Amino acid sequence: MDIYEAIRSRRDVRKFRTDPIPDDVLERILQAGHQAPSVGFSQPWRFLLIRSPETRQAVRHLFDEANERASAAYTGERRALYDTFKLEGILEAPLNLCVLCDRRTAEPTLGAQSIPETDVLSTCLAVQNLWLAARAEGVGIGWVSILDPSALRSVLELPDGVEIVAYLCVGYPEAFLERPMLEKAGWRDRMPLEEIVFEEHFESKPPEARKPS
Amino acid sequence: MDIYEAIRSRRDVRKFRTDPIPDDVLERILQAGHQAPSVGFSQPWRFLLIRSPETRQAVRHLFDEANERASAAYTGERRALYDTFKLEGILEAPLNLCVLCDRRTAEPTLGAQSIPETDVLSTCLAVQNLWLAARAEGVGIGWVSILDPSALRSVLELPDGVEIVAYLCVGYPEAFLERPMLEKAGWRDRMPLEEIVFEEHFESKPPEARKPS
Repeated sequence: MDIYEAIRSRRDVRKFRTDPIPDDVLERILQAGHQAPSVGFSQPWRFLLIRSPETRQAVRHLFDEANERASAAYTGERRALYDTFKLEGILEAPLNLCVLCDRRTAEPTLGAQSIPETDVLSTCLAVQNLWLAARAEGVGIGWVSILDPSALRSVLELPDGVEIVAYLCVGYPEAFLERPMLEKAGWRDRMPLEEIVFEEHFESKPPEARKPS
Repeated sequence: MDIYEAIRSRRDVRKFRTDPIPDDVLERILQAGHQAPSVGFSQPWRFLLIRSPETRQAVRHLFDEANERASAAYTGERRALYDTFKLEGILEAPLNLCVLCDRRTAEPTLGAQSIPETDVLSTCLAVQNLWLAARAEGVGIGWVSILDPSALRSVLELPDGVEIVAYLCVGYPEAFLERPMLEKAGWRDRMPLEEIVFEEHFESKPPEARKPS
């Protein structure tokens, strides 16, 4: 698939079919992630594949708890709209993929001394690589960010120095929507490019002017 | 360009030609960044285009200071090898692009309450989108991470609540190297995929076993 087509048509998927992803497809997607740029060629990303129903059930439980708290931050129509959204596909998707950053190093990572979190940023670049490769393979990915990170660490039994960067649901989608679900539902509008590009100096409208529509 | 070809052949570029990037090419690259996924459709990325020689000279000065400190972390052969590396192209590249995250919001961002830094992670996804689009356009990008972030904030006069995520040099490259420069120079080896993929449970070698080659 053409790179621009993959970028344009990639979606955050929450509705999955349950059929598994063939091994060769999954390997191409993970290899794409592994070819991301990383600070000092550190390749700090680690891909934890989770299929166990027990683990996924535990993660889904964490989502339910966190989502109840999150929903309570909104009121009135916004709250009602929020509560209509399906925001995860943890149990339906045949695969959950937790993308980790291994921050333990034997020597200082080249290029990471001024900004130590650069390894986490590198790991995000891997996420986008594999997200786009998945799109080209017809595979959907959904990022679940409504999870208490320390509770998730406990469920996954991660050692110190290894951080969670992304918790992804992976599987064939019911459909790739033409527009993002939150745009279609009127939660927020897409910003015009002119509003996010600045020449020489950053000067933006105050947040009051950028209220959700 | 095919998505897998863009992913495979993308490089962190440090040696640039000085000819400018045509406006239509730059717009396609920025639009690709703007089509990244973002938590709650927040689109928190801001693209600050810097061409001013004065600003770039000031940033280059920050690099020189930070790089002297960074180099001092290595000794012996590693230090000698480090000092051979060209790690930025701030003045040669016709364009510097500072990718910012506007963290100021009028209401809590959907999906960002459990993990507030999700907006910064979203901004990284935009970086990888535009990096791949640039590759497809024959344009090189190099990420300069050897910069003191607070000093860079001062040079760029950023308001509170707007964070620097990436400082990129953008321009036509002298060449796209077949392999990453740090791999070719023997600074680190590429890890085999088996070492970074885990099934159900994360268990990794201790860092001592993962010393740079």
